[in-house]
Amino acid sequence: MPQIYQASVTAPVNIAVIKYWGKRCTKLNLPTNSSLSVALSQENLRTLTTASCSEQFDKDILWLNGSEENVASNSRLIICIENLRLLRSRVEKENPGSQTLSKMNLHIVSENNFPTAAGLASSAAGFAALVYAIANLYKLPQSEIQLSRIARQGSGSACRSLFGGYTSWEMGNNDDGSDSQAQQVATKSHWPDMKAAILIISAAKKGVSSTSGMQATVATSTLFTYRAQHIVPIRMQEMKKAIAARDFQSFAELTIKDSNQFHAVCLDTMPPIFYLNDTSRYIIRLAEELNRVAGKYVAAYTFDAGPNAVLYYLSENTQLVLGLFRECYRKAKGWSSDARPCVPEGFNLGLIKNVGTGVCQVILTEVGDGPKETDESLINEKGLPR
Amino acid sequence: MPQIYQASVTAPVNIAVIKYWGKRCTKLNLPTNSSLSVALSQENLRTLTTASCSEQFDKDILWLNGSEENVASNSRLIICIENLRLLRSRVEKENPGSQTLSKMNLHIVSENNFPTAAGLASSAAGFAALVYAIANLYKLPQSEIQLSRIARQGSGSACRSLFGGYTSWEMGNNDDGSDSQAQQVATKSHWPDMKAAILIISAAKKGVSSTSGMQATVATSTLFTYRAQHIVPIRMQEMKKAIAARDFQSFAELTIKDSNQFHAVCLDTMPPIFYLNDTSRYIIRLAEELNRVAGKYVAAYTFDAGPNAVLYYLSENTQLVLGLFRECYRKAKGWSSDARPCVPEGFNLGLIKNVGTGVCQVILTEVGDGPKETDESLINEKGLPR
Repeated sequence: MPQIYQASVTAPVNIAVIKYWGKRCTKLNLPTNSSLSVALSQENLRTLTTASCSEQFDKDILWLNGSEENVASNSRLIICIENLRLLRSRVEKENPGSQTLSKMNLHIVSENNFPTAAGLASSAAGFAALVYAIANLYKLPQSEIQLSRIARQGSGSACRSLFGGYTSWEMGNNDDGSDSQAQQVATKSHWPDMKAAILIISAAKKGVSSTSGMQATVATSTLFTYRAQHIVPIRMQEMKKAIAARDFQSFAELTIKDSNQFHAVCLDTMPPIFYLNDTSRYIIRLAEELNRVAGKYVAAYTFDAGPNAVLYYLSENTQLVLGLFRECYRKAKGWSSDARPCVPEGFNLGLIKNVGTGVCQVILTEVGDGPKETDESLINEKGLPR
Repeated sequence: MPQIYQASVTAPVNIAVIKYWGKRCTKLNLPTNSSLSVALSQENLRTLTTASCSEQFDKDILWLNGSEENVASNSRLIICIENLRLLRSRVEKENPGSQTLSKMNLHIVSENNFPTAAGLASSAAGFAALVYAIANLYKLPQSEIQLSRIARQGSGSACRSLFGGYTSWEMGNNDDGSDSQAQQVATKSHWPDMKAAILIISAAKKGVSSTSGMQATVATSTLFTYRAQHIVPIRMQEMKKAIAARDFQSFAELTIKDSNQFHAVCLDTMPPIFYLNDTSRYIIRLAEELNRVAGKYVAAYTFDAGPNAVLYYLSENTQLVLGLFRECYRKAKGWSSDARPCVPEGFNLGLIKNVGTGVCQVILTEVGDGPKETDESLINEKGLPR
């Protein structure tokens, strides 16, 4: 039996605080504006991917969460694999004795440790893990920044999952995408107090896909170009400064404003795109009232292309923030002993009425690290999923 | 007993298709952008106001829908009354024999023919009727355009209720507001096929008031200024052209886009302002799908500072438009024999599931006339509300 070569890695989910929305080139996944995100802990949310290759494999196959994907029809996947094979073939050319892994077919197995039903964008972690796993399998010399340019072509925001902590995706200027890449803004340990809670909304329905949605916005929103060209560049600078200074007030204000503006340009699209529902809006009201009562930002909310909320908060405010949401959503799964249900003094109690079932699950997590190698393999000795 | 002088008028509700949102001067109610609206038929929606004055009246009193308002604390009301008294005193100076009505106190009684619970902006019709009634009582020579500058100071959009049909509020340039006034773009008879339906949302809660909401937008939305300065001026021109040409396709597209953009800048406000709820958004989806199936715009939706929908449509599409919404909201009050419940062929039936109780009432109406004198008086021989 020919040998099976393999490498396994994990990669984190990232949640943007300055949003990516709109491509200037759909083929290369080049964005209309830079963006910035926070990697979440892989304890709670991660993709585990094993990439393997062998002369005995007949074709490239990807198994994603237990089902075989059609690689031939997934052009984004093919682009990533071909880019990595090309880099491997250079390694082989420069090291004549090395195995010609670039000529072998790949078997890739990928699994998330969170349910797809959670509605969290899993493609970012998925493509980051896939690229990082194959790069490790091929023992490529490329840096994470360089690999991020490949992951970007799989799924735009995947480039940001090549790093832990706080990561920007610099949009770049070149037409070939050679400068559209991710770079780390700060590590997780730079700001260890930063926590995150994800509130999963019950019965969330699948909305407009982000790929088609963002291009509809580019084509029809008259506010969008102004945002991309005039507002986001300023916010990127301000957000980097806020993170460097561990300034939660600025971080929260920018995070909230940018989430709302992203959903505003979705609404300015023809036909309009809605991701927030009444529960999402209710969570916003609760967070705004909490910040008002606290006299400062203690909870920064952000929403991606779906109704689920992500809250960033500092560990010193854990009881204040989680206590309120636990009071409102006692029946949700996932609460910990970190916080008991509690409404802060002075809070508008009229807002607490009629709460209850909008949130089915919470995920309490924090800022996390970037992709890691692991010994945990998802393939068996035959090169098939375990 | 001293004589009681009186005049009674009715004025229409108007619903903007290019939205007013934001003041450049709050004292004079000068807007940041021009706007354009449609007056609705007074058969269905109107304010009836009787203005009277007499030497026997001790003070200015306003009875609004049965309850006495505190005139002294209503600065907007005082401004309107003082402006009109000043104009009357000029009439008296020029006509030495005339009664000195300007020295007498006013008793004003005002009533809407629609429930306040309907959540329709009644201040526009209310201030228009009040100004027009007092102007008639005083036999002022001023035109509707001139009177609209006074009504504007009561409630911005009230200036547009001085006319029937299609009316623009030209924002003007002068600091004193002397050129910020309404003017008729087209009469009701210019486009007799235009119909309107109002869908009243069940259990609509009072949201942020439009006065405080719009100034929060001016202060905090980074998209707002761009809309006011660069987008609305173009849309005003296009909308006037669409109305002149009776071009429903352009009319509908502009109406829809401007409603969505108005709600987008509300969402871009800090803290964000929400007027649309899940039912509002559902109505949008139904209208968008209806237009898609029809292959053209047949229903133009617009939402003011609340969740209720207003649909404009041409009479030839009555069955198509009302039939769909009647199918979805069979239990709502107010449907007529004009349309039976019906889902058009090719309509995405998945959208029809789980409909039912979001809309409690519909008001089927059409474009209407401007303010009118009436013999129907709301005061009795003692100068008190009947």
